[in-house]
Amino acid sequence: MKLLIALGGNAILRKGDKGSVDDQWKNINNAVEIIAKSIESEDNMVITHGNGPQVGYLLEMMHSMNSERALTIDIADAMTQGWIGYMLQQSFSNYLRDRKTISVLTRTLVLDNDKEFSNPTKYVGSYFTRDQAERLSKEFGWVFKEDPRGGYRRVVPSPMPVDILEIDIIKKLLDEKYVVIAAGGGGIPVIKHKDNYIPVEAVIDKDLASSLLATKIKADKFIILTDVKGVAINYGKKDEIWLEKVSVSELHDLYKKGMFPEGSMGPKVLASIKFVESTNGIAIIGDLDDASNVIKGLSGTVIVP
Amino acid sequence: MKLLIALGGNAILRKGDKGSVDDQWKNINNAVEIIAKSIESEDNMVITHGNGPQVGYLLEMMHSMNSERALTIDIADAMTQGWIGYMLQQSFSNYLRDRKTISVLTRTLVLDNDKEFSNPTKYVGSYFTRDQAERLSKEFGWVFKEDPRGGYRRVVPSPMPVDILEIDIIKKLLDEKYVVIAAGGGGIPVIKHKDNYIPVEAVIDKDLASSLLATKIKADKFIILTDVKGVAINYGKKDEIWLEKVSVSELHDLYKKGMFPEGSMGPKVLASIKFVESTNGIAIIGDLDDASNVIKGLSGTVIVP
Repeated sequence: MKLLIALGGNAILRKGDKGSVDDQWKNINNAVEIIAKSIESEDNMVITHGNGPQVGYLLEMMHSMNSERALTIDIADAMTQGWIGYMLQQSFSNYLRDRKTISVLTRTLVLDNDKEFSNPTKYVGSYFTRDQAERLSKEFGWVFKEDPRGGYRRVVPSPMPVDILEIDIIKKLLDEKYVVIAAGGGGIPVIKHKDNYIPVEAVIDKDLASSLLATKIKADKFIILTDVKGVAINYGKKDEIWLEKVSVSELHDLYKKGMFPEGSMGPKVLASIKFVESTNGIAIIGDLDDASNVIKGLSGTVIVP
Repeated sequence: MKLLIALGGNAILRKGDKGSVDDQWKNINNAVEIIAKSIESEDNMVITHGNGPQVGYLLEMMHSMNSERALTIDIADAMTQGWIGYMLQQSFSNYLRDRKTISVLTRTLVLDNDKEFSNPTKYVGSYFTRDQAERLSKEFGWVFKEDPRGGYRRVVPSPMPVDILEIDIIKKLLDEKYVVIAAGGGGIPVIKHKDNYIPVEAVIDKDLASSLLATKIKADKFIILTDVKGVAINYGKKDEIWLEKVSVSELHDLYKKGMFPEGSMGPKVLASIKFVESTNGIAIIGDLDDASNVIKGLSGTVIVP
């Protein structure tokens, strides 16, 4: 069985954590231990992960100190692939001794005519006052929007992922039974200009990039581990209904009706739909803490062809 | 021909650079372009790189903002492997189109009884006042020493590298003609305790780790690219003598006599000696700006068996 497991932010940071290194190791070791115990010896596995809070942390640091020396988002993305990739690699080497684990720094191709480049929507990094925002906007050409939560925040494009540039090596390593950590934070975004790849400052949704990668490796199962037990209609309301098993066509209808909020369950549902529609594989969205059952399809929302 | 090329800090930052992202791309693209033009189609190649200024930058940021949220040096190392590994990978994909380039997050094994752990010698990160140093020492258990350049700085162990944990994958990728970026910053240091690998806060000399890696892959040439034209006796003095070609036994004698300063040419010379003595290969230390000739052995100091 070929699996792609997309780890949510709670695999690294839990609500209430201060973000200490000890907290991070504890969370990562927990997640890795469950996964290591849940897979079968004949399974091939790719692990992807988010990086939102980590990129936020790096950008905040860079700009609180000295914005002249601040680096770009593509480099911050690469740093988080190093950071989290190392922690996962290190943890898997202890919990899954009969496999080798390898992190692949992954670039994701996006299109330079993606509408997000003319109308960026994704908030990143710190909150600024209007004056600060105007100064930074002049200095770096950044785009700011007022955040509904207060203050001004930089917005960057969140374009659709269209290709995974390191796909060949990921496939090769997977065939040779390596546990492959890839496409962290959705991958480092690049566009193609003539024959060159050019980095862009953007943020790629990690679930959509994971879906693309799961499709390209022809995974049998695409598993999204997060901090809720699955997909619900009317989530948090009185008439909330949890979906246990749902056909992709049914879920697609619900998605088109706008039943899932953008920025939280929406992209996960869309990522699952795209994967199941293109591969006839199975997607599962479930709780990291119940990963053992989610991986087996005994818990979470199972999306079938 | 199997090559290991160790890039010095000037491949990323030049003297006088402010460290902007544009500066970094310019330097990396320059270095990669020269290397891409200098290798033959039948050459296999591993690239390693330093990370001193980059780790310094990250530690400075983390501690200037909020030392409670500061991360450990092993994680900062991993971040720089992501950062620089990505930039090199991206640059090679543009300058060397007929190859694939891949960065391998690399851990380096050190021994927990290395004498450096009881007597750390390597300065890292920012300068502090005596009061700050005492506070940080209490809070985090850090060791501080007075830096001859003024102020107090954290010192960490710089243990000898004894194994490269990702060696199997590096060899495999190399055999398949990938350009492999590995052991960045000397690798992320771990010790072995029972059957587990455990991260340690230490800094591994990148030239010594590169030498170990060059030995393990059985490189024909181990090339250290730096910011001087080679190895000199009495460097900077009136009777300075540049070495063009030198046998490893002759160089070893000079090294034992303390002819090369610790912290600059010393480790490069030692790294070269170790490599040539264990493999009968050739080591070359030369100027990055003349890399094309250095790689061919026409410039720099050539150390032969």
